[in-house]
Amino acid sequence: MQRGDKETGQHAGAHPRAERFKPGKVVLDTSLFVNPDARKYFGDTPTEALEGFLFLAAQVPILEFYMPPSIFRELLNFIHKDKLSGDLLVVLHQKPPNKHELTCPAFLLYELIEDIRDRINKGLRVAESAVRGVSSKGEKVIIQELRRKYREALREGIIDSKEDVDLILLARELDALLVTADQGVIKWAENLGIKWLFPEKFRDYLLSSIKKARLLEI
Amino acid sequence: MQRGDKETGQHAGAHPRAERFKPGKVVLDTSLFVNPDARKYFGDTPTEALEGFLFLAAQVPILEFYMPPSIFRELLNFIHKDKLSGDLLVVLHQKPPNKHELTCPAFLLYELIEDIRDRINKGLRVAESAVRGVSSKGEKVIIQELRRKYREALREGIIDSKEDVDLILLARELDALLVTADQGVIKWAENLGIKWLFPEKFRDYLLSSIKKARLLEI
Repeated sequence: MQRGDKETGQHAGAHPRAERFKPGKVVLDTSLFVNPDARKYFGDTPTEALEGFLFLAAQVPILEFYMPPSIFRELLNFIHKDKLSGDLLVVLHQKPPNKHELTCPAFLLYELIEDIRDRINKGLRVAESAVRGVSSKGEKVIIQELRRKYREALREGIIDSKEDVDLILLARELDALLVTADQGVIKWAENLGIKWLFPEKFRDYLLSSIKKARLLEI
Repeated sequence: MQRGDKETGQHAGAHPRAERFKPGKVVLDTSLFVNPDARKYFGDTPTEALEGFLFLAAQVPILEFYMPPSIFRELLNFIHKDKLSGDLLVVLHQKPPNKHELTCPAFLLYELIEDIRDRINKGLRVAESAVRGVSSKGEKVIIQELRRKYREALREGIIDSKEDVDLILLARELDALLVTADQGVIKWAENLGIKWLFPEKFRDYLLSSIKKARLLEI
């Protein structure tokens, strides 16, 4: 599955079309295995979904799969480690992005900072209306409501963790297809010209890639 | 004051040292004229401080002064426009940064996003403790306290406006000295290798530059 293997592959000489074919790269987010709506195409539990993915992925020599180590660590919280085979390490490459050489276009800084500014203002309005609601709804109900609304205002649809940045930068570095359901990550992928795909479509994508690989006789 | 003028300056041929001398660039934040602690070295009011600066700046041919238009618009809220002379436009160049060509190292994205994440969590704790304080302190007092503490938690010491980004990017683009008192801006200047100076020191800096220019016989 490594590019080196492909370039010196035993069929390469026999099949010029295969020789010309560089494997596509795919960067995976945890949502593919963790989000119930996304993983159901691969398995009922995160562990089963990961196994289901590995089973298919091993049959797609025209694709290489990557995950930033930070995202992989997140995934490990959801799966039974003892059930994982060495296939995982061979099929799903763990690679961090090159944080110190990659750059980001400056105009994105403006977008990020304006977005955060709006959200911070929204967060204050949420907090003020919580304070004003205490007398009628009571402290306990208001605190629950505050947490939910504050989270919505400040966290949803925005890149808000270094894991998110890892995903985006790795996909950018590898010119890879990014498979994610995270709206904040998708927004940045759009801004940076990164190909992306919803996890719900990913099984079909793999099946079609298996077919394509057979046509190419790789 | 334009670089072109210097290079074809009438003294250039007569004074080889002057010919070798490229004017240094300086990017100014509004704090220099607006912040009372900073402006007192130039004048009592923002308008007087701006005039005081222009008077000195016109005597420093070895420096070029810049301000992003967004920062200049902020400044206009504080000064009497009718008292401004054309000198302002000649001495203080208004130049926006080249947002679409400049880049920012990716590792700074991590810092920014981690910083914001911490602040967002802190903001929620501030809001929760406000809700819990209503019964003892009353709504009105709590709302005032909330606004102050929330602002402290989420806005202080962080780049939080496109004007801040303009300052940093312009200083980076011009390889200029950035004169600012904004802690968020200074933090990024440090990260990006941008020279910076507190406004309090700027008058001395100008006076020494005038001396230096005389020694260089420019």
